[in-house]
Amino acid sequence: MNVADLTVAKINALVVPTTEEWVEQAIANLDTILLDHSQCERKAAGVALNLIFRYPSSQKLVRSLTAIAREELEHFEQVNQWLERRGIPLAPLAPPPYGAGLKAQIRAKEPERMLDSLLVSGLIEARSHERLGLLATHCPEPELAKFYRGLMASEARHFGTYWILADTYFDRAAFTQRLEELAVVESQLLSTLHPQPRIHS
Amino acid sequence: MNVADLTVAKINALVVPTTEEWVEQAIANLDTILLDHSQCERKAAGVALNLIFRYPSSQKLVRSLTAIAREELEHFEQVNQWLERRGIPLAPLAPPPYGAGLKAQIRAKEPERMLDSLLVSGLIEARSHERLGLLATHCPEPELAKFYRGLMASEARHFGTYWILADTYFDRAAFTQRLEELAVVESQLLSTLHPQPRIHS
Repeated sequence: MNVADLTVAKINALVVPTTEEWVEQAIANLDTILLDHSQCERKAAGVALNLIFRYPSSQKLVRSLTAIAREELEHFEQVNQWLERRGIPLAPLAPPPYGAGLKAQIRAKEPERMLDSLLVSGLIEARSHERLGLLATHCPEPELAKFYRGLMASEARHFGTYWILADTYFDRAAFTQRLEELAVVESQLLSTLHPQPRIHS
Repeated sequence: MNVADLTVAKINALVVPTTEEWVEQAIANLDTILLDHSQCERKAAGVALNLIFRYPSSQKLVRSLTAIAREELEHFEQVNQWLERRGIPLAPLAPPPYGAGLKAQIRAKEPERMLDSLLVSGLIEARSHERLGLLATHCPEPELAKFYRGLMASEARHFGTYWILADTYFDRAAFTQRLEELAVVESQLLSTLHPQPRIHS
C-alpha cells in the first residue's frame, strides 16, 4: 500500500468528521489546546515505547515504533517551546474520556491485544491528523497555523505505520473489519463535545 | 558545576570500580552484551519518559529528560542496527538483579521519591559510562570498540544531567549524602559477578 492509498484509508478510517463546534471551541482556547497537545505528544511517545516493551522480539514493530517514539518526543519538545514562548507553564490537564474510552476497547488476550493496540493507536493518529489540519486552516495566528500544518504530515505517516504493522502481523480482511468496529466507537466517543477544550474533546 | 567537575563527581560517585572478571565475561560474550545493551537503552528511555509523566509541571526536568529520552532512543536504534548486522534477532533477556535492586532503594514518599529516582538514574548512567569505556578499551573488534567509545560521552553527560536536576530541586548537602548511600548499594549489587553476561552483571 503506497502513501496515497494510505491517506485514503485514513480518511475512510474516521467514520464521522469533526464538527464545527469543536473547531470553534479549539480556536477560542488555543493556549489550552497547546497544553493538551503537549500531553498528547508525550502520551503518543509513551504508547509507542510501551508497545516496544511489550513486543521486544517483533523486529519490524520495534524498528517502526522507535522511529515514531523519537518523532513524538521531537514534537513534544516543539510544542513545549511554543508553550514557553507564550508564557504558559507546563501543568497537567484532566484528559477527556476519549483515550480511556478507546483503551477500554483493547481486548486483553493476545494476539487480539496487539491488533487492537495497533488499530487504536492508528485511529488516534488519524483523528489527530484531521484535527491538526483543522487547526492549521482555522488558526488566526499564521506562525502557529504553519506549525500545525507541519505536524499534520507526521500524523498521517504514523497512521500509515500502524496500519502497515497491523498488515504485517494480521490477516488484512480480519483486521479491516476490526478497524471499522473501532472507528465506530472512536466517532461515538467524540459525538458529544467535551466541555473542556482538548485535542480530542 | 562545569563538565570537568561533573566528570570528577561521576568518578567519585562509583564506590567500587568494575572488576577484570566482568571485562572478561563481557568480551567473551559480545553478542549477549549487545542484546542486553539494547534493552538498557530502551529502559533508560522508558525511565526518563516515566519521570516526565510523573513530574509534568517541572519545566527543567521535562526539558532535560526529553533530550535524554530522545538520545537513548537514538542509541537503542543504533544498537539494534548492530544486532541486525550481526544477525542477532531481537529477544528479551532476563535482567540481572541490578536494576530491581536499585529501584528498591527509591523511597515511596515525595519529595524523596523524586530525589532517589534522579540519583539512581544518575548512578546507572555513571556505571554505564565506566563499563562502555571498558568495552571500548578491551573490545577486539575495532568498529564495535569505536561505537562504544562514541556512546561513552553521552552516558557521562546523562549522569551530569541527573546530577544537575537533583541540584535544581534539592539541597546539595542533603542529596550528596544520599548519593553516597546509594552508591554504596550500587557497588554492593555488582560485588558478585552475575553468572549471565550483562552490562550490569
